[in-house]
Amino acid sequence: MVYLTRVEHFNAAHKLWNPDWSEEKNKETFGKCANENWHGHNYEIHVTVKGEMQPDTGFIFNAKRLSVIINEHICDKIDHKNLNIDVEFMKGQFTTAENLTVNIWKQLQPVLKAEGVDLHCVKLMETPRIFVEYYG
Amino acid sequence: MVYLTRVEHFNAAHKLWNPDWSEEKNKETFGKCANENWHGHNYEIHVTVKGEMQPDTGFIFNAKRLSVIINEHICDKIDHKNLNIDVEFMKGQFTTAENLTVNIWKQLQPVLKAEGVDLHCVKLMETPRIFVEYYG
Amino acid sequence: MVYLTRVEHFNAAHKLWNPDWSEEKNKETFGKCANENWHGHNYEIHVTVKGEMQPDTGFIFNAKRLSVIINEHICDKIDHKNLNIDVEFMKGQFTTAENLTVNIWKQLQPVLKAEGVDLHCVKLMETPRIFVEYYG
Amino acid sequence: MVYLTRVEHFNAAHKLWNPDWSEEKNKETFGKCANENWHGHNYEIHVTVKGEMQPDTGFIFNAKRLSVIINEHICDKIDHKNLNIDVEFMKGQFTTAENLTVNIWKQLQPVLKAEGVDLHCVKLMETPRIFVEYYG
Amino acid sequence: MVYLTRVEHFNAAHKLWNPDWSEEKNKETFGKCANENWHGHNYEIHVTVKGEMQPDTGFIFNAKRLSVIINEHICDKIDHKNLNIDVEFMKGQFTTAENLTVNIWKQLQPVLKAEGVDLHCVKLMETPRIFVEYYG
Amino acid sequence: MVYLTRVEHFNAAHKLWNPDWSEEKNKETFGKCANENWHGHNYEIHVTVKGEMQPDTGFIFNAKRLSVIINEHICDKIDHKNLNIDVEFMKGQFTTAENLTVNIWKQLQPVLKAEGVDLHCVKLMETPRIFVEYYG
Repeated sequence: MVYLTRVEHFNAAHKLWNPDWSEEKNKETFGKCANENWHGHNYEIHVTVKGEMQPDTGFIFNAKRLSVIINEHICDKIDHKNLNIDVEFMKGQFTTAENLTVNIWKQLQPVLKAEGVDLHCVKLMETPRIFVEYYG
Repeated sequence: MVYLTRVEHFNAAHKLWNPDWSEEKNKETFGKCANENWHGHNYEIHVTVKGEMQPDTGFIFNAKRLSVIINEHICDKIDHKNLNIDVEFMKGQFTTAENLTVNIWKQLQPVLKAEGVDLHCVKLMETPRIFVEYYG
Repeated sequence: MVYLTRVEHFNAAHKLWNPDWSEEKNKETFGKCANENWHGHNYEIHVTVKGEMQPDTGFIFNAKRLSVIINEHICDKIDHKNLNIDVEFMKGQFTTAENLTVNIWKQLQPVLKAEGVDLHCVKLMETPRIFVEYYG
Repeated sequence: MVYLTRVEHFNAAHKLWNPDWSEEKNKETFGKCANENWHGHNYEIHVTVKGEMQPDTGFIFNAKRLSVIINEHICDKIDHKNLNIDVEFMKGQFTTAENLTVNIWKQLQPVLKAEGVDLHCVKLMETPRIFVEYYG
Repeated sequence: MVYLTRVEHFNAAHKLWNPDWSEEKNKETFGKCANENWHGHNYEIHVTVKGEMQPDTGFIFNAKRLSVIINEHICDKIDHKNLNIDVEFMKGQFTTAENLTVNIWKQLQPVLKAEGVDLHCVKLMETPRIFVEYYG
Repeated sequence: MVYLTRVEHFNAAHKLWNPDWSEEKNKETFGKCANENWHGHNYEIHVTVKGEMQPDTGFIFNAKRLSVIINEHICDKIDHKNLNIDVEFMKGQFTTAENLTVNIWKQLQPVLKAEGVDLHCVKLMETPRIFVEYYG
């Protein structure tokens, strides 16, 4: 079993906010991330697939094709967007790094399955100091 | 003459938009950066001061003090904010990397002057691939 | 299960030395790291916790709180210190990257447990080219 | 069990090409990587060993010795080389990141075994955006 | 005057070789870089333009347009190529980092001039440890 | 005129302390950097030389030779050392990043002059967030 990772990036705005809570409780829980008028990040996404090497290419999966899939199914939908407003698959959900990572996994896993490769891990770096990993 | 640089960072949302233009012309000029609902970045700011070494410390200027000044006068005002809405010194102005850099210079230069040190350069990294430098 | 990592850093001096050995054997085993008058590093510490997303926040654990814990229990005690002399939890122990990592785990694990979150991994980068991981 | 990683690097030329295929099929499958006259990369190699801390050193394994082994058995043989032509252990094989990683593992594992340490993972970064991991 | 930099990258093979010299003198002068069968790098190119901010955009120059120009005039011609064989503007020339940088400047300067912006600097990173800057 | 930079690194311990001052004033001025038992850093040193390209090599100066010089005259003398105690050219001097940079310049400039190349800049990164540049 060999693991191949492709790194892509996107820039987006978001805020952390629980609509069932008072402004006070939101500020207390989410701190500066609850700023009403949004803030944003340069996100970096690492997508790892696993499999056996194919005898006629020496590839697990074509890294160029992996890039195309990540861009088509993720980056094109969330790059230069507001995660809370503009992104179909995040609608009505928390836009924490954790939940964004899980939802990116849910978007990519069936697509990669259909291409005959197993998704192993989605890693999302919100900043160089905070990142999340999800293995399904 | 010796040059000392301190690096700080902040996360913010913004959009590029000329209110005198049609939506069409804005999209044509600013592309994805004109997204109505904002996008954002992890900005990195490099502040360089210059001077002679002080005989009793071997410092040009205390790097810890430089950090405090950058945080007090810049980061505390723009970190986790919307540059177009929340930031006093960017009000009614373009929030391009260029204009943000020039305005950070204008905020810092008199403060540093008052502390007896010359501001040499403000460098602002909007992404790891786009950055701006201003020398006054 | 989702994994959240927070990165912090500290600067410290240390030396590698076995007091039961001759100077010759210490130099032979630890090389330049046995320099009598110490050397030092900019250490980077990655603390990974794991858990389920909380339904009212979308967090595994508050990354800001994680930062506060790492700083209070680790960085405040070892930043700008001599690991062999100044740090209570390293007293009389080897200050190798391996042993430092295991001891940071031992400091953090019960604190995080008490906050209701599982420590998954401590990763310590001694230099950009040498790092250690410990999973308990 | 503690994990220690050492990072080394090398620069090499290669091309991706299946000699059983037409030029057309090679270009279609491998894209720009099939350029007849080669291209190249700054490769970064991360070698992770695992074990228990030794009571008289606090080491899993001497990181300096690990560096010497990686250089002697890998870097000296492939640095500033053409992977398809000059490297004994890649002869007649695909020089994909996947296959190069597996072959580096095969070179290092018995050597490390003979030194009494378990090889855990070889990670090879072909570019900052594409990397492969192999655990045996 | 404000300075805007855009970073792009390309991967290429090359060798350093003076055809007027013996193999011995080439190996003595260029060391491993004279390997007959080539080696290669992940090059990073930083292109800096300078100018005044435009009153209707807050831009010196559109960074997206700058990226398109660098890709069209440089990266498309040298990415995944052999610098000694495949690249028109390096034909019969040394492919040192120095000479490659100067030739990239010569390619870009008139194109940027025609777009109304001044090229300030081309910086080329051959590896993370060796880079060249040229200001015309 | 073309500029060539070579990056090297070293790890060292130091403290900031003015022997003419009380402990109180030292702590007030230098903060945690005045810790009696030292602290340390992974320093990164960027040495930039300038010159014309040589017609028979395409080099300003051989980057491999530049590396040898930096290691022989700087890194071998300060790597894994205590800057305040072990380093001849820092004896009795402040070991601030500023003063260390100026002294590295003084060590390198005549050596490079003797080799027929002009030293342009020494840049010293004490941490990824604090660095100093000196141009003579």
